[in-house]
Amino acid sequence: MKNAFYAQSGGVTAVINASASGVIETARKYPNKIGKVYAGENGIIGALTENLIDTSLESDADIAALNHTPSGGFGSCRYKMKSLEANKVEYERLIEVFKAHNIGYFFYNGGGDSADTCLKVSQLSESMGYPIQAIHIPKTVDNDLPVTDNCPGFGSVAKYIAVSTMEASFDVASMAATSTKIFVLEVMGRHAGWIAAAGGLVDSSIPVVILFPEIDFDEKSFLAKVDKNVKEYGYCTIVVSEGTKWPDGRFLAEQGTRDDFGHAQLGGAAPVVANIIKKSLGYKFHWAVADYLQRAARHLASNSDVEQAYALGEAAVEMALDGKNSIMPAIIRTSNNPYKWEIGCGELKDIANVEKMMPSNYISEDGFSITDECREYLLPLIEGENYPPYINGLPDYVVLKKSKVDKKLPPFEL
Amino acid sequence: MKNAFYAQSGGVTAVINASASGVIETARKYPNKIGKVYAGENGIIGALTENLIDTSLESDADIAALNHTPSGGFGSCRYKMKSLEANKVEYERLIEVFKAHNIGYFFYNGGGDSADTCLKVSQLSESMGYPIQAIHIPKTVDNDLPVTDNCPGFGSVAKYIAVSTMEASFDVASMAATSTKIFVLEVMGRHAGWIAAAGGLVDSSIPVVILFPEIDFDEKSFLAKVDKNVKEYGYCTIVVSEGTKWPDGRFLAEQGTRDDFGHAQLGGAAPVVANIIKKSLGYKFHWAVADYLQRAARHLASNSDVEQAYALGEAAVEMALDGKNSIMPAIIRTSNNPYKWEIGCGELKDIANVEKMMPSNYISEDGFSITDECREYLLPLIEGENYPPYINGLPDYVVLKKSKVDKKLPPFEL
Repeated sequence: MKNAFYAQSGGVTAVINASASGVIETARKYPNKIGKVYAGENGIIGALTENLIDTSLESDADIAALNHTPSGGFGSCRYKMKSLEANKVEYERLIEVFKAHNIGYFFYNGGGDSADTCLKVSQLSESMGYPIQAIHIPKTVDNDLPVTDNCPGFGSVAKYIAVSTMEASFDVASMAATSTKIFVLEVMGRHAGWIAAAGGLVDSSIPVVILFPEIDFDEKSFLAKVDKNVKEYGYCTIVVSEGTKWPDGRFLAEQGTRDDFGHAQLGGAAPVVANIIKKSLGYKFHWAVADYLQRAARHLASNSDVEQAYALGEAAVEMALDGKNSIMPAIIRTSNNPYKWEIGCGELKDIANVEKMMPSNYISEDGFSITDECREYLLPLIEGENYPPYINGLPDYVVLKKSKVDKKLPPFEL
Repeated sequence: MKNAFYAQSGGVTAVINASASGVIETARKYPNKIGKVYAGENGIIGALTENLIDTSLESDADIAALNHTPSGGFGSCRYKMKSLEANKVEYERLIEVFKAHNIGYFFYNGGGDSADTCLKVSQLSESMGYPIQAIHIPKTVDNDLPVTDNCPGFGSVAKYIAVSTMEASFDVASMAATSTKIFVLEVMGRHAGWIAAAGGLVDSSIPVVILFPEIDFDEKSFLAKVDKNVKEYGYCTIVVSEGTKWPDGRFLAEQGTRDDFGHAQLGGAAPVVANIIKKSLGYKFHWAVADYLQRAARHLASNSDVEQAYALGEAAVEMALDGKNSIMPAIIRTSNNPYKWEIGCGELKDIANVEKMMPSNYISEDGFSITDECREYLLPLIEGENYPPYINGLPDYVVLKKSKVDKKLPPFEL
């Protein structure tokens, strides 16, 4: 009987722990088929450095509480495995650690990069004579994985952005006669406008202009649109993606620094946009940058999202016990109204390193709003509320014990 | 039988409409004692320009729905009445409008400035031979009114900031091993650190450094504290008030622009603090500016706050019918554990233009945290959840009809 390994990868979300809960609770239902579930401390780095957390030492109540706790309960990391050619030793180390701890199932909970790692581990383990069933569990607020209808984590961010846009717009609407007329909210989404699109879910009586990363920023038509809204509604709300670019390709928000993956580090598109409006139109503004608040906001999670995140973790274990390998359980939408979905299954070779962009018919012709097709797609994803329990006014989020498994191998330098 | 006038003043909150609901529902209980309740469109400007909303044309359901709707349902304004000497004509106009519409009760829902206006209207109306009972209903996220234990609007912002600080800290904690180690959240509160203090309500296992407007920013000791936290906990969360200042008196966030009251317009303390840390300590950071999201977040309102806001509106009408004048219903705390409160009453002369600061024993000796006394004061104010109803994933906030009363007077230039 083999043990399992579970790790969280990349930026965490409000519901990635719900997937963890789904994996661990489901594994606990099959004590004769699956051994212990070990979790990587801080993601895949925990496997490479043999820092494994023994989840069997966590209580049932704490594993259940993961379902309502945001962030990565076992720690996550931004650590992209190099290519197999460039650093085969890292992949081999992974498989050695798995072998040393009798791990036969690899559940990797992340986005496109981790789907790729998952695929390589499956392939290499076979060629090394220690075959591991590698199952990817989708997670990303960016909603950019193929095959699955949507990605856990996204629905809750979308709900947060839609509700926040609505609430701030109500605020500005009631002050606009004598005070602030412009509110700018900056949201995540470096390459795709999925999150920004959620700002368009508010009632059409609220004038929202969206700046998508897919559409070059056209200052003139943007200012005309904002001015028209202020004249017609008395105010205007702008939802700007951190990934919005000038026609020359520079980010509005570019700060000149880069992260460990070489991506430009962003932040501050909102004040840039607000000041452009102030300078040209003279309107008083306020701006907000939601940053981590949006992806950590478990207090406002979408019920669809929580349920799907859990179900995908559950399905991952069931698929593993069915003998599946190199796959990812996925959300398949079967009906919009009423919203219905089921769990399907995709091949990792079709998922790894493929980025799903917003369909072009989801953005209005003028580039500043979402279309009815987009609304029809997004609305079910923010459906339902799923509140955490509270104690003394604050959410009762769990912090796990994270007891380590004894090491069996020599240290490994990252 | 006299009619009543109700107006919302200054920055709106998540619960000011709950006070409106309390006023209108209570007035509707006394159809033989009080006539119609007229509301000022966009606050006191609605009275000056005779733009009165007839609240009797709003349905019971809509008035009840105000209880769960953020923002100013009738519109608010930032319009400070000048001194009686400088602009007596404005005060006289107010009283003429009240007289023309047989208004005998003036309910003014706002902060220190509006308490002052309320007092002057009461005094002047008497001297003009048309005595009006002026009752102030407290409202301000800044929590800076005297006499009352706390101000409606503050508890919900405090809850939002405490929950957001907790959620973002969980997020950063799970990523800190390889990624972001510093999270900076900028919060409102220009003169007093009440809102920033709410960041200190999270569990003591979370390393939070607070920058209060009351404490000059000491870069050296701040960096030492942040670095100590990162070394001990792996990360550090900073909650910075928009009103935090350098020792020379400049705001960290100063943008060089001023609002209509001549106050410096702020924004952007968070990126300043984040970059100071990056430059000196080299840690990767993220920052957020909550801005209007914090005061509009009815989705996360404190139940204490909603109940108190309603109760103060209710009490205002009952006090008026008791013949009271020039007063403000206030929250009197009678017990901390369990939290108990009752409605008391303050004299406007003791309230107008008096700003209540944080007691110095609420800030820790090093200036970066709150004390147990502060925690004991704040915790009851974020107690309980009070969720709005949702439809299709979004809160079901009400937009009123706002039907106007026919004008009876010549126009008036502001």
